[in-house]
Amino acid sequence: MVGQVTPSTPPRSDSAPGAARDSSSAAARETAPEAGRDALPEAAGAARHGARDAAPEALAWDVDNCTIGRAMAILGEKWTMVVLREVFTGIRRFDDMRVRTRIPRQVLANRLAALVGHGVLRREPYREPGARVRHEYRLTEKGFALYPVLVALAGWGDRYLADPQGPPIRFVHRDCAAELHVEVHCAAGHPVTDRRDVLPRPGPGARRRRPEL
Amino acid sequence: MVGQVTPSTPPRSDSAPGAARDSSSAAARETAPEAGRDALPEAAGAARHGARDAAPEALAWDVDNCTIGRAMAILGEKWTMVVLREVFTGIRRFDDMRVRTRIPRQVLANRLAALVGHGVLRREPYREPGARVRHEYRLTEKGFALYPVLVALAGWGDRYLADPQGPPIRFVHRDCAAELHVEVHCAAGHPVTDRRDVLPRPGPGARRRRPEL
Repeated sequence: MVGQVTPSTPPRSDSAPGAARDSSSAAARETAPEAGRDALPEAAGAARHGARDAAPEALAWDVDNCTIGRAMAILGEKWTMVVLREVFTGIRRFDDMRVRTRIPRQVLANRLAALVGHGVLRREPYREPGARVRHEYRLTEKGFALYPVLVALAGWGDRYLADPQGPPIRFVHRDCAAELHVEVHCAAGHPVTDRRDVLPRPGPGARRRRPEL
Repeated sequence: MVGQVTPSTPPRSDSAPGAARDSSSAAARETAPEAGRDALPEAAGAARHGARDAAPEALAWDVDNCTIGRAMAILGEKWTMVVLREVFTGIRRFDDMRVRTRIPRQVLANRLAALVGHGVLRREPYREPGARVRHEYRLTEKGFALYPVLVALAGWGDRYLADPQGPPIRFVHRDCAAELHVEVHCAAGHPVTDRRDVLPRPGPGARRRRPEL
């Protein structure tokens, strides 16, 4: 997905330390992946104890064109992802979604219209015998591209929010029926399992923020 | 994350067909990953043309304990994921988040309090010289576990919503500076790149829905 993007900025020297995982170094550990905060590894614990040597690096950057913000402007209503879950699990008709989710009629209509407007869903006519033409909702390519988001969300929800008996939906591999999950990989092919190995960096569209203070 | 879960239900026979990817079979293709809709591969195009042979399989299941719904009850406010992006990129202080995001003060305070309440963020005291004690917001383990969700969201947003020059934030691998992305894998180790290879199935916590009609 983003694997082909060539790094446009070299790694910088403000990496926080890869601290040990034991609880005695909790402060340093928490600091690590939230990179850009501390100018030098040695400063990792400074914020805890008072003096603020420098503003966080990320403060220098504008977020007006942030794609996470834009994604959440589409997906960031509680019901939107639930509507998508319905379509992903084979529920495509308004009344069926109503029955399952109990989303208020007008809210559901609004969410569906918004998802169609954003090109995530498309409307497809159908007609029951003897009834008027109605519409089903189907995923577009842009909608299908949300599968990793849905699987990632489900993975987190399953881990922290499931009932004792487990989650009600599983996503499985058609070929082998084994459970699906998302893995973070880098474009060079390495699996990235340690959160400390993830660094946020200004991307090609990063713009310096105009100071207002 | 969910990789250790043992499949508790065998693969069923209602798989939609693995249709060819050319645009002439768009209807069948769109149908495929939304499994459970059609009872047999041959019925894949039926809904399009009218007769509804059977209700979608998923309709039989309750969604009250859905972990995606629960995850979105926490994350499903537009600003919540943006607040998490701030913390992930090293912005931990209320006033810094205000400067960057321009989220209204009360909204930001509410989102931070909710994230602390859900155990996604924790408050950490700090004191600037000569000032009163204030708090920073840091990710808990539960919060760090959202990294794959954030990377997945960013990947989708980068692909469909970025400005022409590209996204403003990149997540890179500390070791090699290559861009990160999420991959869907199954517990048996297969990478799953085709959306038709993903099947939603009732999980261990699935409950039959009580019919209300």
